[in-house]
Amino acid sequence: MPNRFLAVDWGTTNLRAWVVGAGGQVEAHREFPLGVSRLAPGEAAERFEDTVRPALGAEGLPAILCGMVGSNLGWRQVDYFPCPADLKTLAGGLKRISTSGPPVFIVPGLCCLRSDGGLDVMRGEEVQILGWIAGSPERSRGKRLVCHPGTHTKWVLLVDGRIERFVTAMTGELFDVLRKYSVLRAPPGYDDAPEDESAFDEGQKAAGDGTALASRLFTARARVAGGTMKPEQVKSYLSGLLIGADVAGTPALLGAGVGTPVVLLGDLDLCRRYQRALETAWATVSIHDGDAAVLAGLGALFEMESVR
Amino acid sequence: MPNRFLAVDWGTTNLRAWVVGAGGQVEAHREFPLGVSRLAPGEAAERFEDTVRPALGAEGLPAILCGMVGSNLGWRQVDYFPCPADLKTLAGGLKRISTSGPPVFIVPGLCCLRSDGGLDVMRGEEVQILGWIAGSPERSRGKRLVCHPGTHTKWVLLVDGRIERFVTAMTGELFDVLRKYSVLRAPPGYDDAPEDESAFDEGQKAAGDGTALASRLFTARARVAGGTMKPEQVKSYLSGLLIGADVAGTPALLGAGVGTPVVLLGDLDLCRRYQRALETAWATVSIHDGDAAVLAGLGALFEMESVR
Repeated sequence: MPNRFLAVDWGTTNLRAWVVGAGGQVEAHREFPLGVSRLAPGEAAERFEDTVRPALGAEGLPAILCGMVGSNLGWRQVDYFPCPADLKTLAGGLKRISTSGPPVFIVPGLCCLRSDGGLDVMRGEEVQILGWIAGSPERSRGKRLVCHPGTHTKWVLLVDGRIERFVTAMTGELFDVLRKYSVLRAPPGYDDAPEDESAFDEGQKAAGDGTALASRLFTARARVAGGTMKPEQVKSYLSGLLIGADVAGTPALLGAGVGTPVVLLGDLDLCRRYQRALETAWATVSIHDGDAAVLAGLGALFEMESVR
Repeated sequence: MPNRFLAVDWGTTNLRAWVVGAGGQVEAHREFPLGVSRLAPGEAAERFEDTVRPALGAEGLPAILCGMVGSNLGWRQVDYFPCPADLKTLAGGLKRISTSGPPVFIVPGLCCLRSDGGLDVMRGEEVQILGWIAGSPERSRGKRLVCHPGTHTKWVLLVDGRIERFVTAMTGELFDVLRKYSVLRAPPGYDDAPEDESAFDEGQKAAGDGTALASRLFTARARVAGGTMKPEQVKSYLSGLLIGADVAGTPALLGAGVGTPVVLLGDLDLCRRYQRALETAWATVSIHDGDAAVLAGLGALFEMESVR
């Protein structure tokens, strides 16, 4: 292994940083509310040096950064590289942004053409996914579907260890805007309703084959109006309905069928909900922690850069 | 024809009123920003007598009211009647709410069981639809699909002049919340973008078979990010995508196929957008004005009440 380095996943809302030792072990870890949407233009470099490095005792360490830090809202805009892509693609596109002192690199994003029109783009998830692949040789063989759930859920088709293509679904964002602003919003006092697995399952059932989403969403309202669902169940029902519709419809846009093994990667709580929705139909579903994967990916990239 | 009467379509946002003469002709018409969502509890009766009647010179006339005025937010809560239903069903459920003076009636709503779960409900559109049927004897024969587009678009299956069943799609509400609060919201200065028919058509194409809506919505963002669509085109593209997905998916929930004649009823501008989306696949599509239909429906109900 090469020298110690600072690994950073710098997203829209938060920044997560790890000091990785020469043996690959994590020596320090911190999370900061310093996502790029919270920074003024030009502020990223300053906060990195004044806040992030000192908090981790990482002054003077080389660093590698992925995520929205490479967007036009971040520290420096770095290209999107077209799919198919693997870790070598990302390593070849690393952008060194420090002109003096220890090297600081930003990882490029990925893009691809969607079958249903236009470009799709990704920044950050690609490091997790390719890092997950690097974790075991058998992950570089065959066809897999990776689902990275979130505000903008990424569905990614892997072929022989490469990201072949992907699509983004606004599933989490639909949930948020409908819960905050629509007729399905929480009535006063129902914001913190507990998870309700049976309501989630009912919602998934109501998603059916994933068509007519605008119409199926209204069943949440109609059930409450008709007295067959309690207002505190709407949140879980809506979650089941939106995840159910995502699962029923999006994989087909990548040409993936229910026989393709699915890897859920990212926030474990969200992953478990997708697992619940997938397992009614899909053959093989496994869950993997996003943090471990992003560290593996950044570590591999740092190593590839170090030996160049 | 019976005596003169006052016909009122009293919705969530607005109140529309007509004085109808003994010969059926409209003698006066006014619209008021007095929808039930704008009224305090108990205010409806007062505003009706103090504002609506005097503005139309309709003091002392019998009146018949339909729409959300019959909901728990309105003047008096009136039942939902189950489908199948026709004008006789509504006439049998008219609720007289005036205890003295000229009679004032509220028309009941309709409800039905959805194939995808739970009750669905309607208040106001049923009078337009049944009024439209009353306009010509041939409309009481065979199978038709009526689409009443709006915040909550109603798709209604007619069989031999009856409302057999219906589903509600939150198509207009999805458009509103996504344009106001999501990553697809208008950037400053693009709120009043003009209609763009080619962007609408592209959006409809991107809707595909209506599956994976959360994913297809992201194409709007991705096209702008990729430089293949201008920010001012997003509004029309999103409208085409949501209406396209509605048209592609919702009729099947009613068991209606592309051979079923479609009647678009309501706001003519919205009807024309649905027509544009429907005409790529559906055999027969016609547009009819909602105002004329609600007047015909209220007139027929008033006549049925008068001869009882």
